[in-house]
Amino acid sequence: MLQDAMKAQMQADIKLIEDTLEALLPPKTDCAQRKLLDAVCYSLEAGGKRIRPMLALEFCRICGGTDDMILPAACALELYHTSTLIHDDLPEMDDDALRRGKPSCHIAYGTATALLAGDTMMMMPFAWIADSKSIDDTRKIALVRELAKAGGLYGACGGQQIDLQNEKRTDVTLSELEEMYSYKTGALIIAACRMGCIAAGADAVTLAAAESYAQKIGLAFQIVDDILDVTADEAALGKPIGSDIAQNKNTFVSLYGLENAKAKAAQLTNEALALLEQFPKSEFLRGLTEFLLSRQF
Amino acid sequence: MLQDAMKAQMQADIKLIEDTLEALLPPKTDCAQRKLLDAVCYSLEAGGKRIRPMLALEFCRICGGTDDMILPAACALELYHTSTLIHDDLPEMDDDALRRGKPSCHIAYGTATALLAGDTMMMMPFAWIADSKSIDDTRKIALVRELAKAGGLYGACGGQQIDLQNEKRTDVTLSELEEMYSYKTGALIIAACRMGCIAAGADAVTLAAAESYAQKIGLAFQIVDDILDVTADEAALGKPIGSDIAQNKNTFVSLYGLENAKAKAAQLTNEALALLEQFPKSEFLRGLTEFLLSRQF
Repeated sequence: MLQDAMKAQMQADIKLIEDTLEALLPPKTDCAQRKLLDAVCYSLEAGGKRIRPMLALEFCRICGGTDDMILPAACALELYHTSTLIHDDLPEMDDDALRRGKPSCHIAYGTATALLAGDTMMMMPFAWIADSKSIDDTRKIALVRELAKAGGLYGACGGQQIDLQNEKRTDVTLSELEEMYSYKTGALIIAACRMGCIAAGADAVTLAAAESYAQKIGLAFQIVDDILDVTADEAALGKPIGSDIAQNKNTFVSLYGLENAKAKAAQLTNEALALLEQFPKSEFLRGLTEFLLSRQF
Repeated sequence: MLQDAMKAQMQADIKLIEDTLEALLPPKTDCAQRKLLDAVCYSLEAGGKRIRPMLALEFCRICGGTDDMILPAACALELYHTSTLIHDDLPEMDDDALRRGKPSCHIAYGTATALLAGDTMMMMPFAWIADSKSIDDTRKIALVRELAKAGGLYGACGGQQIDLQNEKRTDVTLSELEEMYSYKTGALIIAACRMGCIAAGADAVTLAAAESYAQKIGLAFQIVDDILDVTADEAALGKPIGSDIAQNKNTFVSLYGLENAKAKAAQLTNEALALLEQFPKSEFLRGLTEFLLSRQF
């Protein structure tokens, strides 16, 4: 696929996702908890690459599903993902004042409202899935199960816990780092790809292939993030560069070296692309994979 | 129902709920995120009256359902409720060091782990409902919808936001206070009663009656809490008494007076008891209602 056509479809997907997000969010009416709703919308509207909903949408499509089958769940994924970013930025966690080039939610709305905005955004996704119109209850429950597990003890929350513990250690191994990433970011990427397939009614073999692909790109994304933290400029990254180093974080770059990290990311990308070959009409998804994993470094 | 028999059934219900909670929680294996699991279990094992799961269980029973239809969702309610207590106790929220007579989760495990424990306990309930064995997917999705909405912007999160805002105000009215309580604690009590009915397959008329009952007792519980904050002793309450006053909180007692608050709680209790008359075999639930709303004051 030509890169211009690929970028155009990517923009169209992002617009579809953001329009659906806006339609699903409660109306901005005059209510006593309006500040909380504003904080939720502020964080969601701060942008982001919408990778998780886009993966869900594309896997639904290549499995023969229609967009309306997955869009509410795709937006639920973005909502949950954003909730984890809000909580990760809080002072007691990573204490980041900047997110996507804007003040973090707690800087803009205060820590208490930011905490509650994250909480709200952990509950709302399940209401969105439950209220989906174009899939039956059996598929809905399968989607609920995927999202709930991706966010739990062996998912994003567990990964963040390990990440915090690892900061205080000097003896973290590469395999421990990989395990942490598999929970912290990998689980939700896997859930996104699997949820796309589930919404379309795919079989177990297809689900397993999507999961293998997601494992590869989930780790690759994280390695790329680690690389960008040392090589990107602040404007492009939308957050302070070198923050991992400043916090003495163990990263792929610190444990494995910059060049090795780049080679590993490239290898995982190639393996992910090979896995996509078993899917029909995956041309856009292949282009997207290459594009996302070759962000400027 | 004789009070001894009522208390015996209450104890049996609590044991059933706590045994199910223990069975549903992940095994305490040696994993990197073990501290997070310990924090989750610590908060759940701190006790509490288990009112929400008990209401769900009893409404399921009086609607003709079996215990296994509601037990996972009943425990999901307790898990979610406990998550809100952990977050409410955090320094940026109510900053409470004591909960149920023990150090709050963040005192015992640190603020970051407490925050993540709460987050984990907002995701896990949905996995428990999804993995329920004894109800079909349509009932499961209805349960997911109830819980998700009870925790959202027009539920517990929204209520806590309004509560925080009201602390800084001196002109809060009684109806504003009632509205805040209807979100902060009322929504989840309503969800508990409705979920019991839904699991048993009750009709819309029954659901509406359960909701009316829940509205009454939800507000009554909150008024009783406000009364106990000024009249109970610390050992019985399990948290510092007078903390509402110390934080300049608007309560039913501060806005309406102690005697009026007591009269209102009694009136709501009577109305709730009258609503139970349309349910068959609600003798235990009537006794429970009287017992819970006549806690020592």
